[in-house]
Amino acid sequence: MSTLENKKIAVLATDGYEQSELESPVKALKDVGATVEIISLKPGKIKSMKDHEWSDPVNVDKTVADAQERDYSALVLPGGVINPDKLRGDENAVQFVKSFFDAGKPVGAICHGPQTLINAGVVKGKTMTSFPSVSKDLENAGAIWKDEEVITDGNLTTSRNPDDLPAFNKRIIEEFSK
Amino acid sequence: MSTLENKKIAVLATDGYEQSELESPVKALKDVGATVEIISLKPGKIKSMKDHEWSDPVNVDKTVADAQERDYSALVLPGGVINPDKLRGDENAVQFVKSFFDAGKPVGAICHGPQTLINAGVVKGKTMTSFPSVSKDLENAGAIWKDEEVITDGNLTTSRNPDDLPAFNKRIIEEFSK
Repeated sequence: MSTLENKKIAVLATDGYEQSELESPVKALKDVGATVEIISLKPGKIKSMKDHEWSDPVNVDKTVADAQERDYSALVLPGGVINPDKLRGDENAVQFVKSFFDAGKPVGAICHGPQTLINAGVVKGKTMTSFPSVSKDLENAGAIWKDEEVITDGNLTTSRNPDDLPAFNKRIIEEFSK
Repeated sequence: MSTLENKKIAVLATDGYEQSELESPVKALKDVGATVEIISLKPGKIKSMKDHEWSDPVNVDKTVADAQERDYSALVLPGGVINPDKLRGDENAVQFVKSFFDAGKPVGAICHGPQTLINAGVVKGKTMTSFPSVSKDLENAGAIWKDEEVITDGNLTTSRNPDDLPAFNKRIIEEFSK
């Protein structure tokens, strides 16, 4: 039985994250004992989208400018179309993501979440998946893209969409508990 | 004085297009005599976004499955974050875009509009711009990306965001009238 007692996990997201792709992993991680912090571009609340409509918000625990990789065991990147489009344009967010790869710490990214990995320069040679619309960009960045519900290559675990969440959550808990 | 009398222009978009990036070029093109048709993935209406909120719709004139490049003089690709994310996943849309490049016909793309060009495989070696979040993906696809309000390279004219619309509209009218 995997446990994440005494592990602190960072979830990096901003306005426009896909609601289920943040809430479901957060619940699954907390259910096995992890402490989870929501990291974003600004303090306060960030607003989710559900089926392309604005939906419930979540409280931000720390801004990415103030967050440091050394305080966390692992990183989760939810999707949503607008969320990673904003994150990948923020230098602090891109550096924060890159620092988990530099440290060899486990990272889970789902749907459009992997877009930020392109800007962090960390997908070259990685076998991975994503929402299909991003596949060409990942391949052009050097990834080997496959249409599978969950793929782990080294420290990186990826999934395609909200339907993959059960497999994604199970896998990241396994990886994050190693 | 440029004129587009007797020219028919295709505007390819779907739900989530940035309102001003469709309406402003359409008006500018019609003001100089062009006939403009809205091409989309489905018949009926498509809904715009304005500042990340759903906004006014526009009527679709033809589905992309029924549209043919030979019926048009030029193509415009508006932005918006959700719009090109849907278009680039549709094989008919990608082929429709590619056919304008194969025919050497002028194409204008603004903001996130250029994302669909990546899937059409037509940006390699092109000097161009876009919304900054897409710059890395365009470079990885072989483009030379620059931060300028409007750039024309061969048949392709690109701009960054709604603030560039006056320069974008002026330039595409010049290019489309050649």
